[in-house]
Amino acid sequence: MTGPPAFTQNTLREGFVEFAFGEPDPALLPVGLVHEAAERALLGAGPAALAYGSSEGPEALRAAIAARTAARECLPLAAGDVLVSGGNSQALGQAMTMLTEPGDVVFVECPTYNLALGIIADHPVDIVGVPMDGEGLDVAALEAAVRASNASGRRARLLYTIPTFHNPAGVSLSRPRRRRLLELACREDLIVVEDDVYRELAFEGEAPPALRAMDPAAPVVRLGSFSKSLAPGLRLGWVDAPPALRKRLASFGVLESGGCVSQFSAHVVAALLDAGAFGAHVAALRLAYASRRDALSGALREHLPAGCSVTAPDGGFFLWLTLPSGLTASELLPVAERHRVAFAAGRRFCTDGDDHSLRLAFSLYDEPSLAEGARRLATAVAEATAGRS
Amino acid sequence: MTGPPAFTQNTLREGFVEFAFGEPDPALLPVGLVHEAAERALLGAGPAALAYGSSEGPEALRAAIAARTAARECLPLAAGDVLVSGGNSQALGQAMTMLTEPGDVVFVECPTYNLALGIIADHPVDIVGVPMDGEGLDVAALEAAVRASNASGRRARLLYTIPTFHNPAGVSLSRPRRRRLLELACREDLIVVEDDVYRELAFEGEAPPALRAMDPAAPVVRLGSFSKSLAPGLRLGWVDAPPALRKRLASFGVLESGGCVSQFSAHVVAALLDAGAFGAHVAALRLAYASRRDALSGALREHLPAGCSVTAPDGGFFLWLTLPSGLTASELLPVAERHRVAFAAGRRFCTDGDDHSLRLAFSLYDEPSLAEGARRLATAVAEATAGRS
Repeated sequence: MTGPPAFTQNTLREGFVEFAFGEPDPALLPVGLVHEAAERALLGAGPAALAYGSSEGPEALRAAIAARTAARECLPLAAGDVLVSGGNSQALGQAMTMLTEPGDVVFVECPTYNLALGIIADHPVDIVGVPMDGEGLDVAALEAAVRASNASGRRARLLYTIPTFHNPAGVSLSRPRRRRLLELACREDLIVVEDDVYRELAFEGEAPPALRAMDPAAPVVRLGSFSKSLAPGLRLGWVDAPPALRKRLASFGVLESGGCVSQFSAHVVAALLDAGAFGAHVAALRLAYASRRDALSGALREHLPAGCSVTAPDGGFFLWLTLPSGLTASELLPVAERHRVAFAAGRRFCTDGDDHSLRLAFSLYDEPSLAEGARRLATAVAEATAGRS
Repeated sequence: MTGPPAFTQNTLREGFVEFAFGEPDPALLPVGLVHEAAERALLGAGPAALAYGSSEGPEALRAAIAARTAARECLPLAAGDVLVSGGNSQALGQAMTMLTEPGDVVFVECPTYNLALGIIADHPVDIVGVPMDGEGLDVAALEAAVRASNASGRRARLLYTIPTFHNPAGVSLSRPRRRRLLELACREDLIVVEDDVYRELAFEGEAPPALRAMDPAAPVVRLGSFSKSLAPGLRLGWVDAPPALRKRLASFGVLESGGCVSQFSAHVVAALLDAGAFGAHVAALRLAYASRRDALSGALREHLPAGCSVTAPDGGFFLWLTLPSGLTASELLPVAERHRVAFAAGRRFCTDGDDHSLRLAFSLYDEPSLAEGARRLATAVAEATAGRS
């Protein structure tokens, strides 16, 4: 087993394999590209890279994002169609503040990204979880939940969804369901916040089409990000939505006062995109993370006892492991920690507290460490199962 | 008259003196210091400068802010007492989300910073304006408003105030009133959000003591920022509050997901502070802006017709001009624009729509331009007054 990553957002315990931390391997962060780009931005844009700048982000960055989207997704955007954001968390908070009212119903997938759940819960809305299966969100169940909500006089306002390379469930929404979801959203005036943060990290050909791109007139707010494709510390993303929704988001008070986006980060990323190295960088990331997914899912298949099932994604950072019937992730965790391996228990991600699954991030470690972690986890599952029987 | 600044957040009209724009002169932005610091941060911290990092900001930056506060304000802070923010607008939005509930009453000064008013208005609270005079906020009037609010069953929750080098009113809260406000806040459990963005830009000796520093146990959330002292495009500030309030702010969902602060900007500023050039930089800014204040207030005194009064501040960016009785800023503006000078009309800053004053920023132009703008404005006032009589 090679050494642990140099540092992370979280505190790594020595000798542990920490599958809980969904963040990029520091070794894969583009320090050299950012260094060059910072120099280009400060020498090129000069003080403009340090001023308030446009509240919607620097024109050069908006144009570069629009051009890449138009070329890769057949969604004809212009610079003016893109709002630069301070990353998806900031953009989700902004969407909650500007698009919901107290008492509105907000739907989330069950499971969903735990920190997004925290952001939504900071707002005075009712949160309703909707189940998922191997094809992603159960859109028929969502339809019934929207009807029930509206019938009870509570406005079904917004769905937060991660249709592509889901965190934590590791699946993507099927195309028929994407179409049905768009139809529902248009019919019921349900705003769909599409968290599209993993799009660039597709391992098998291209990512599925974004909801936003499949129907440019539908009420879809797509959140894009450079956190996975470049570096989370830049805190930079964008919002792409039909004009009426975009304008409502752009009227955010914090945005008007220049308060979301580091213009400096934005000018640095604009310079980086302009230098033309982004495509090669994400291509290398795709190869690196696909190899890590293969290493982890292969070792899990080899070592896990019967009764476990693993969903290995076609992109992104996460595997979703469902435990043998009767064993919960929270019961397993202390056993696993004795074997120096850890994970994120399923209940963190579920509005209904379901704890029969767990999330494993394969982004932070190299292949030998991932295989070692899988062996330890398999030992812990066998031990916990034996302990229960 | 020298040429206009190279660019701004806003669109400058050719040949105009745009007093409306409260932003630093691009020529005073520390491009060289940031360039060096970015290099130091990326070579020194390396990938840590691009990772998620701690949700409360890099330790090095928190420690540097705490040390400067302890040394200059006799407020003994440690790194752990400081939360790095994405600038004051972000921090104010966070305070509104985490510290207020729907229907709460939030007090603001009348006049107050117009964009803060927009941020507060994005939240489902009742906004109540409290008058100011030459000593700053009328604390007796606030006291009465708090009593009236609580008596009517609406919770008096929070005051947003800019006690030091006020935007737009150009005054600072007197010491007796600072003490009385702190007493009121403690007695009524009224949270005071102290916007302290101009502290480093004191022209006459030291700035008045911060409310936060005068009573470290009082419910004061101080918002500090590098937007004026370094560069707005870095989008970087901090929050300094008693532990209980700080913890409530730190439980913000967006913060937990790393969603507010550009770690990259934060590491760059940490490197800049570490290099030791910050003190000399802000000393130069103080001299530059004091000279601009003098140029503008001197030219206004010389040229304005009788009946005008001007409040020239001891720090910050803004002069506040009250017009001769009967003339409103909105009536004056088209006349002024014919003379190629513009300003921010008072009603933008006032919850009661009062429009007999206007805000002039002296931050963006050099002295000859400011003097020329003052002459044009004086001509416009004389013309508008003559037109009315």
